Amino acid sequence: MLKSKIKNIAIVGGTHGNEFTGAYLVKHWLKNPHLVKREGFKTEIVFANQRAFKEVKRYIDRDLNRSCSEIILNSPDLNLHEERLARELNSLIGPKDNADKNVDFVIDLHTTTANMGLSLVVSDDSLLTWLAVSYLCEEFPELKVYRWQGDEEGAYVNSLGSAGFAIEVGAIAQGLLRADIYQDMQKLIYSLLDFFEKPREVKRSVTIYDHVALVDFPRYKNGEICAMVHPNRQDRDFELIKDGDIMFISFDGDSITHKGDESLYGVFINEAAYYEKGFAMCLAKKVEYNF
Amino acid sequence: MLKSKIKNIAIVGGTHGNEFTGAYLVKHWLKNPHLVKREGFKTEIVFANQRAFKEVKRYIDRDLNRSCSEIILNSPDLNLHEERLARELNSLIGPKDNADKNVDFVIDLHTTTANMGLSLVVSDDSLLTWLAVSYLCEEFPELKVYRWQGDEEGAYVNSLGSAGFAIEVGAIAQGLLRADIYQDMQKLIYSLLDFFEKPREVKRSVTIYDHVALVDFPRYKNGEICAMVHPNRQDRDFELIKDGDIMFISFDGDSITHKGDESLYGVFINEAAYYEKGFAMCLAKKVEYNF
Repeated sequence: MLKSKIKNIAIVGGTHGNEFTGAYLVKHWLKNPHLVKREGFKTEIVFANQRAFKEVKRYIDRDLNRSCSEIILNSPDLNLHEERLARELNSLIGPKDNADKNVDFVIDLHTTTANMGLSLVVSDDSLLTWLAVSYLCEEFPELKVYRWQGDEEGAYVNSLGSAGFAIEVGAIAQGLLRADIYQDMQKLIYSLLDFFEKPREVKRSVTIYDHVALVDFPRYKNGEICAMVHPNRQDRDFELIKDGDIMFISFDGDSITHKGDESLYGVFINEAAYYEKGFAMCLAKKVEYNF
Repeated sequence: MLKSKIKNIAIVGGTHGNEFTGAYLVKHWLKNPHLVKREGFKTEIVFANQRAFKEVKRYIDRDLNRSCSEIILNSPDLNLHEERLARELNSLIGPKDNADKNVDFVIDLHTTTANMGLSLVVSDDSLLTWLAVSYLCEEFPELKVYRWQGDEEGAYVNSLGSAGFAIEVGAIAQGLLRADIYQDMQKLIYSLLDFFEKPREVKRSVTIYDHVALVDFPRYKNGEICAMVHPNRQDRDFELIKDGDIMFISFDGDSITHKGDESLYGVFINEAAYYEKGFAMCLAKKVEYNF
């Protein structure tokens, strides 16, 4: 089934200009396209936000990975840098509002300052996406899958194609490369390309961390944060958080705990880019997803 | 001797706007000045580059910690944001070109993406500076001292006062807080304040890492980097590098080794802010410094 479906895939790096791993990978592949060429389908290599990369910023005017919404794609008068980029990407990858798209599968490359290891962020429910997810989970037992179904999932870059997901690797600071993270992301991509070239049967079930809630930092009345992620919570992504477990430590030294009957898992704990978005971590349920 | 000398010290945070640890520490102390108040001297708390902090950038126009040079301080027509800030800091802390300064000791708070642990960057040769360094080394056996005597040491913020140094703590990404790093920096400052309040005799000798050379990334002919710090070199600050030891790995997978008769120590390995400055790490000699 896969063989007949996949004609064109896209590997997108540099969607966030200060996430160097994906940006340098696509730069390397643009110089050496044979490395991501496989039999039976075409691989588009996309260096998404070159201006933000040059300025070592996540974005120039607004977050590109929250800009691929129908409203922006269909409003040529919206002229912020990333709004224009979103429409260019849509021409290359989409059109998003058309069943007949240029690209069947979009792989969008991201890194995080959170200690998420090798992980996927999936917002899409197409069969092809989940077959690929399941395959990668078999190949990389350490791989974690976070399913995000928040308000903005329809505005992700990978929403432009028929199927796809974002790869998130961390922890890594913004604006630099770590060879270990670079190699981890690279091997994940090469493995996925092999699967698209020679699909095999995979389990129709994957363990996922399903998004439940965002947790903001504790704040002063003026809106400024008044606490940090507690040392006992820092770096412990994909670990269980129960009622009463420690979450934050205030600048005054007070501990702040989790309150809630439901035990949930922390994800994206202390991601630098989310300070401005107003959350310190996400909470997720661990469930078996059958497709 | 210390008692008679110290009348006024300054703790400067947010010199680089995306190094949150120092910025949030000084914000906390501005709200709670008693925490850094001690008998016998006055403590100035300085939040240096608030605009860069708001924009989560190292600087707006140019690096403030390379802007406190005589030429900028004495040229009121130089009007970049950080040039103006440097002159404001000079009024508060200096004047730099006058023996009778407002501040006797400047502590400038920095963080780094390099795995430097708790460390000091010292460029000054005053007795007071080295007494304080020696005291801290006795209190914190894990503390490392890097002496930088490059071209720009005269332009550091801490060069404005009679004595002082920069504290560097890492590894930490830019644009976020880690409670462990925050607490490490905080305890170092509190200990130093205690020393200024109740000086004691210290050893007149300190083990230092004395700057020798900058090492740039390997680059393509067009100037772009073509290699990353090798996984076996990453995070190994203050470790010995001998002739033939591995340094970088190219995007093509080739290893690049250190060539040189002298065995030297790596410092500031893979600091994000130094990509634009054109170096991947510093090399230093480990020596005993007597004063």
